[in-house]
Amino acid sequence: MDQKEEEKLHQLFDFFREIDKEKLITRQTYVTGAVRMEDDAEHAWHMAVMAIMLAGYSNEKIDVLKTVFMLLIHDLVEIYAGDTYAYAGVSKEEQHEREARSADRLFGMLPDEGKKLRALWDEFERADTPEARFAHTMDNIQPMMLNDYTGGKAWKEHGVHLAQILKRNEHTAEGSETLWDYARRNFIEPHVGKEIKE
Amino acid sequence: MDQKEEEKLHQLFDFFREIDKEKLITRQTYVTGAVRMEDDAEHAWHMAVMAIMLAGYSNEKIDVLKTVFMLLIHDLVEIYAGDTYAYAGVSKEEQHEREARSADRLFGMLPDEGKKLRALWDEFERADTPEARFAHTMDNIQPMMLNDYTGGKAWKEHGVHLAQILKRNEHTAEGSETLWDYARRNFIEPHVGKEIKE
Repeated sequence: MDQKEEEKLHQLFDFFREIDKEKLITRQTYVTGAVRMEDDAEHAWHMAVMAIMLAGYSNEKIDVLKTVFMLLIHDLVEIYAGDTYAYAGVSKEEQHEREARSADRLFGMLPDEGKKLRALWDEFERADTPEARFAHTMDNIQPMMLNDYTGGKAWKEHGVHLAQILKRNEHTAEGSETLWDYARRNFIEPHVGKEIKE
Repeated sequence: MDQKEEEKLHQLFDFFREIDKEKLITRQTYVTGAVRMEDDAEHAWHMAVMAIMLAGYSNEKIDVLKTVFMLLIHDLVEIYAGDTYAYAGVSKEEQHEREARSADRLFGMLPDEGKKLRALWDEFERADTPEARFAHTMDNIQPMMLNDYTGGKAWKEHGVHLAQILKRNEHTAEGSETLWDYARRNFIEPHVGKEIKE
């Protein structure tokens, strides 16, 4: 292996080591049995499996590998910016600004691949392609499913109102009408007036 | 949505809920800072990102999405069978037998997709395709990288010998000669005679 190839691999593995920190970013969704919150890496893994197996329900034809890669990396910015809970009251602009600085720092570790990763993250943020729309549908439905599975515990603890959930999900149907219809009836409605405030 | 479509989605989401348990399967590799061991879901996420970004180093041309899906699901059998540490002394046959029963149970939840998942898991186990060979390279190199990053702590605690690591990695080069060469020099050799017994 020549020096250039070795340097290239050093850069890539330095990046793989740095993103290991994603495992320590805790979210506000309980895992099975509500024994603890899940972390960003677990969330990304779960959505990646779901995206591959649910791709056929996308409203538009999608490049599945691109969607999966987007889902696997879209929360990496939280390594420096931290997780922002969906119902925490932080403005979208403020959150995006903080995460964009984090993206500069993290993706800047890789001269070549960094640009591709940054473009993929920007695409997710803009949500203006079929892949990004479906990725957002996954990103919204996965925690909803876990909240339902753990008896709405996280919703109850945060005192979440139905209107907040519907606002948060105003674009979920744009990735998949079928999955939003299913999720609304199966994961949200059973909790309204109970764990979710009306 | 008609009854049949609803039933199909119930099956899929029951499966997504069941596999949430993968997040509670602890491995024998420390994460960043050695604050705790990683779990199977985190391991799968990490390898999936690595596989996409390192696919160009595969000895043979691979279907990247297939490889990623294989990596994302190949440890699901541990939900019922538990994690078997690479250097625990359990025979390969015994481990495979236990995991195959687990695969029957888990993938049996899905009448259609279950067959595909089972075939993908079997392919990983046989390691007889370019995708499965590269997936094994990822499965071996990712924990090696973390062991190096955490000062060889897990190797030291388990009293691992170099011969055991080389035996464990006897096929790693079959997925990627370049990555095995890199990993051997950068992740194993610096620890021989220190955290790794000679």
